[in-house]
Amino acid sequence: MAKSVDVGELVDRARAGQPRAIGRLISLVEDAHPQLPEIAAALVPYAGHARIVGLTGPPGVGKSTTTAALISALRASGARVGVLAVDPSSPFSGGALLGDRIRMTEHATDSGVFIRSMATRGHLGGLAWASPQAIRVLDAAGFDVVLVETVGVGQSEVDVVSLADSTVVLLAPGMGDGIQAAKAGVLEIADVFVVNKADRDGADLVERDLRQMISLARREIRGPSWRQPIVRSVAPRGEGVDELVAALDKHRDWLAAHDEFAVRRQRRAESEVQAIAIERLRARFGDIRGAAGRSVLSTAAGRVAAGELDPYAAADQMIAALDG
Amino acid sequence: MAKSVDVGELVDRARAGQPRAIGRLISLVEDAHPQLPEIAAALVPYAGHARIVGLTGPPGVGKSTTTAALISALRASGARVGVLAVDPSSPFSGGALLGDRIRMTEHATDSGVFIRSMATRGHLGGLAWASPQAIRVLDAAGFDVVLVETVGVGQSEVDVVSLADSTVVLLAPGMGDGIQAAKAGVLEIADVFVVNKADRDGADLVERDLRQMISLARREIRGPSWRQPIVRSVAPRGEGVDELVAALDKHRDWLAAHDEFAVRRQRRAESEVQAIAIERLRARFGDIRGAAGRSVLSTAAGRVAAGELDPYAAADQMIAALDG
Repeated sequence: MAKSVDVGELVDRARAGQPRAIGRLISLVEDAHPQLPEIAAALVPYAGHARIVGLTGPPGVGKSTTTAALISALRASGARVGVLAVDPSSPFSGGALLGDRIRMTEHATDSGVFIRSMATRGHLGGLAWASPQAIRVLDAAGFDVVLVETVGVGQSEVDVVSLADSTVVLLAPGMGDGIQAAKAGVLEIADVFVVNKADRDGADLVERDLRQMISLARREIRGPSWRQPIVRSVAPRGEGVDELVAALDKHRDWLAAHDEFAVRRQRRAESEVQAIAIERLRARFGDIRGAAGRSVLSTAAGRVAAGELDPYAAADQMIAALDG
Repeated sequence: MAKSVDVGELVDRARAGQPRAIGRLISLVEDAHPQLPEIAAALVPYAGHARIVGLTGPPGVGKSTTTAALISALRASGARVGVLAVDPSSPFSGGALLGDRIRMTEHATDSGVFIRSMATRGHLGGLAWASPQAIRVLDAAGFDVVLVETVGVGQSEVDVVSLADSTVVLLAPGMGDGIQAAKAGVLEIADVFVVNKADRDGADLVERDLRQMISLARREIRGPSWRQPIVRSVAPRGEGVDELVAALDKHRDWLAAHDEFAVRRQRRAESEVQAIAIERLRARFGDIRGAAGRSVLSTAAGRVAAGELDPYAAADQMIAALDG
């Protein structure tokens, strides 16, 4: 049994900006705590004010350095910044945790910054329902900007980041075949491109290839009339970071002018609600019992394994059992 | 509209071992072709004979070289070998495709070997229903062994590979902090460990750390009485590959002696049936219309985005709408 939590008190303390309460709420999300419905209900009225910015890119592109520089720039303008590093839920780690690395920087003692890594190992599809809830914690806690970034490159991590209000895709020279290192999918999720390590050989080539990809692609791919800007940066020196902030501000203004904020928030909410509904149905599947007391799933799967039933017919039996 | 397929004829040709028919069937799985239920029904009676071996490990550990060496060893014993390389469904590619690299080796002209990469980009949870179906194609086509390996390290890829009859986890020295590069999760999925690049400094350390991890963990983690062996290999020279084959044979005998084959096939079928059922429900969610003709999901999500409803209550509304 998970320990019972005083949700009202915890949410009050998180809203007062207490880092321990904020961290505890995110841990409860990670652990799929049974009181999550109550927690979500308590947070929903206070959420919806933060600007959600997603950051993704291939490993080694400089995501953590860029995030650290972005935090500095946002802090300089007075914004409180929450960072959620979506950790690859893989049994194989991919280097130091982003959050851990950033935490060691100058932001460690700044109370206007909260940085947290989140993993959902062992929950298939877990990121889809857990990430929006962790973002909601930071949003309700009053952070003006919530940066969500991937540590991994799995589809589910990238999906989550691309549900932000604005999504930044980072590329850099010297990553395999340059722009070839990014598949066509990045065009669909990027609102702003960053070519990091712009002082290195090959940065011009990456930018040129990127421009070509953008002009070849349909312009409307991320909504009408928005042209994805390309910002060049050298993140460790802070070069290009003001330009990135400016590009993000321009995108925010564009979202507001085209009613796209509402579209994106709707899309994010649909993704979250669907992920929660599917999680609940998944749990029910195992619980539905047939005539002999054995679960319907187990019986149907046994017939599939024996070659007597095809898996689609078995799935239809499951759904029929669910309906009544 | 997807082009209609003569399923009976295609399955007959695949069962006769025609590579083009086998490849076409796997492409139809990748594309989520509407005739998949018919295809699965046609294949199920002929499947269930192949031995399914999963291979996974962190990037750079030598998975493709090990797979190539394993194919050679299995071919030498007369087995026909099908290989399915589960591609990371990420917008960021992680180097050359495994299947492409292997295909260029000595196995390219061997009709007893079929190698195929499979990606399911854009289908959230797609690997969970697509991989078992692609495996079934190779199984029904009469391959004695089906090797399933991950190119990526996302949870969903690793989940799929760990549903094999026998799962091989590869590690190697010089990958970050050695054994630290693998999180505790690998213990749960491995039936056989390979320490590859065993001629390098640090291989002893990796093996020692691994033995320690194994003895600390519960022995029964992968079933009663099976002790996960550690095989040392230098895959490019073929060293240790006979030992890997022997370890896999020993595990197969253990599975047979403990009725564990049936347990694993049942587990695999449950995972597949559940993934298909969830995919069908996901499609239905978007289709369920409320009073005003707007989808129930869209209406409920809109209220969540507006801060009027929490996502769990919204999910419950969805499920209620599904039921009746």
